[in-house]
Amino acid sequence: MEIFFLGTGAGMPAKLRNVTSIALKLLEERGAVWLFDAGEATQHQILHTSIKPRRIEKIFITHLHGDHIYGLPGLLSSRSFQGGESEVTVYGPKGIKEYIHVSLSLSQTYLKYPLTVIEIDEGVIFEDEQFTVEARLLEHGIPSYGYRIVEKDRPGTLLADKLKEAGVQPGPIFRNIKNGETVTLEDGQVLEPGEFVGPEQKGRVVAILGDTRYCENALLLAQGADLLIHEATFSKGEEKLAHDYFHSTTHQAADIALRAGSKKLCLTHISSRYDRNAWRELVDEAQEVFPNTEIAEDFKEINIPLK
Amino acid sequence: MEIFFLGTGAGMPAKLRNVTSIALKLLEERGAVWLFDAGEATQHQILHTSIKPRRIEKIFITHLHGDHIYGLPGLLSSRSFQGGESEVTVYGPKGIKEYIHVSLSLSQTYLKYPLTVIEIDEGVIFEDEQFTVEARLLEHGIPSYGYRIVEKDRPGTLLADKLKEAGVQPGPIFRNIKNGETVTLEDGQVLEPGEFVGPEQKGRVVAILGDTRYCENALLLAQGADLLIHEATFSKGEEKLAHDYFHSTTHQAADIALRAGSKKLCLTHISSRYDRNAWRELVDEAQEVFPNTEIAEDFKEINIPLK
Ligand SMILES: [Zn+2]
Ligand SMILES: [Zn+2]
Repeated sequence: MEIFFLGTGAGMPAKLRNVTSIALKLLEERGAVWLFDAGEATQHQILHTSIKPRRIEKIFITHLHGDHIYGLPGLLSSRSFQGGESEVTVYGPKGIKEYIHVSLSLSQTYLKYPLTVIEIDEGVIFEDEQFTVEARLLEHGIPSYGYRIVEKDRPGTLLADKLKEAGVQPGPIFRNIKNGETVTLEDGQVLEPGEFVGPEQKGRVVAILGDTRYCENALLLAQGADLLIHEATFSKGEEKLAHDYFHSTTHQAADIALRAGSKKLCLTHISSRYDRNAWRELVDEAQEVFPNTEIAEDFKEINIPLK
Repeated sequence: MEIFFLGTGAGMPAKLRNVTSIALKLLEERGAVWLFDAGEATQHQILHTSIKPRRIEKIFITHLHGDHIYGLPGLLSSRSFQGGESEVTVYGPKGIKEYIHVSLSLSQTYLKYPLTVIEIDEGVIFEDEQFTVEARLLEHGIPSYGYRIVEKDRPGTLLADKLKEAGVQPGPIFRNIKNGETVTLEDGQVLEPGEFVGPEQKGRVVAILGDTRYCENALLLAQGADLLIHEATFSKGEEKLAHDYFHSTTHQAADIALRAGSKKLCLTHISSRYDRNAWRELVDEAQEVFPNTEIAEDFKEINIPLK
C-alpha cells in the first residue's frame, strides 16, 4: 500500500507541480490503483510512472473545481485505448455525473469498459471484505469531501508447519483451527487455535482530504490515521487569508494531525507562490506542531507499512 | 506570422507528442495569438513557451473529439488567473457551447473576461480589416472543419521622402496620393500616385485542417495556400485503413498540397506508432509527391514570410 502523488499543486498547473491527483496503490492488496481527483494532465503524469491505467479501479473526486476534475474525461477515454476492460467506479459530489456524461457524449467517446458514476452523500460510500471508504463534507465553499480509507483487520495466517509437526495433515482439522475452534485429536491431544494461528494483521488507515478550511470533520476523518494527506495552500500566519479563500495553513493541517492522533502528515495542494526553497519552510512550520510531517511532490511515493 | 505547434499527436497524449493544438502567432500583425484546437494539457505546453495566455484572442475548434477539446476548460479558466481581461471568441461545431458551458459552470469557474462561443456553419465565419477566416466541412465521421485564414492585401505605403523631394509638404496632397488620386500642383507639376506609393503587400494564406479523409473541401481550403497543415495519421499504402478510420495518409496529404498549388505542406496528427526514426520516412513519403513538406513536432515553429 503506497501513496503516489501525481499532482500536488493548487489552482493552476505550474512547471514543478501539476494540479491535483493522488494515487493509492493497492497492487499487493487487490491488484488495483485508486485515484483521488484527476486534474488536467493526470494521464500525462501517469505516462511517466509505472501505473497502468487498466489497473485503475476506483476514482474518488473530492470536489468539482477544475483543478481537480478537468483530467477525468481524458483519463477515462485513454484507459479504453490502453487495454482497460474492467469496470471503473467514480465517486464524487453531485454534478460529477453530468460533467462526465456531457464530456464523453459530446466528444463521441465510447468506453470499452463499464463505467459507474456514483454521486455520494456523507457516510460509508464503499465497503467490501478488504476496505471501507467513508466520506465527510469539509468546508470549501462548494461541497468538498474528505475520504477515510480503512483497511479491515485480517485474521492471522494458519501456522501449517507447526500443525504438521504436531502430526496433523492438511484437511478438516486445518480448517477448524483456522476458524478458531479448539480441536481434540484421536490420541487425546488438545490443539488450541491460538497456538497454531499467527497474530491478527491490523488494517491501515489513510485519510485523503479535499480542499478545506480548518474544520471538525477533518479531525474525524484523520482519527488515528497512519497517514493524513491535508492541503496547505497557505503558510502559518495567513489564517485569515486561508479562511477567506476556504483553504488551510501549514499550522492548521498540523493541528488536525496532532489532535486526531494521526501517525504521519503529508502536506499537499502547494501554491506556486512557494518555490523549491520555500517548501522546506512550509514543512518546518508544520513540524513545530506535528513533527512527523512531509511535503508532497509530484512523483513522490510514500509507503504505508504493515503494523 | 508564425505557426507554433503545441501538440501534434493523434488520439492520446504520448511522451513525444501531446494531443492537438496549433497556435497561429499574429503578434506583429495584431498583438494576438489564435489557437486551433486545444487538446488536454495545451495550457501545460504553453507554460514552456513564450506564448502569453492573455494574448489568445480566438480559438478555432476543428471537431469535438476529446483529443482536440479536453484542454479547453482548463485553458479558458487559467487565462482568467493569468491577467487575461480581453475578450476571447471560440468558434467550433455544434455542441462546443454546451461542452464549455457545462465544464465551466459545474466547476463554478467564473471568467474575468468576456467569452463568446460561436457554433459555426460552413462559410466565412470571421472577417475584419485584416483577415477573413473561412470554414468548410471535411470528412471525419463527425463534423470536422478545416479553416482557411486569409490575410488581406495591404495597399502600399506612401513614399513620404520622395514626395518631400518633389517639394510637397505633409497634408492634404499626401492623403490624395495615398488614396490613388493624380494630383496637379500649383506649378503645373503632375504627381502620379503610382510613383509615390510603394508596392501593394500581398496577404498570406494558411489552411489548418481538422482530422479528415482525403476530400475535395480540403483542396478548396488549401488552394494556393502559403502553408497547408494537413493530418497524416497513416503512412502511404494504408489508404484503406485511413478511409475506414476517417483519416489520411502521407501521400494523400501531399496530393492535396500538390493539386491545390499550396506553397508548403506540414504534416501533423502523427500517431505514436511512429517513433522518431519513422518520422523521417513519413516526410520522405510525402516528398515523393510534394517536395516542400515538413513534419510537425511539439514546440516547432514555422515562419510564414511576407511575399
Ligand atoms: Zn484545488
Ligand atoms: Zn484527432
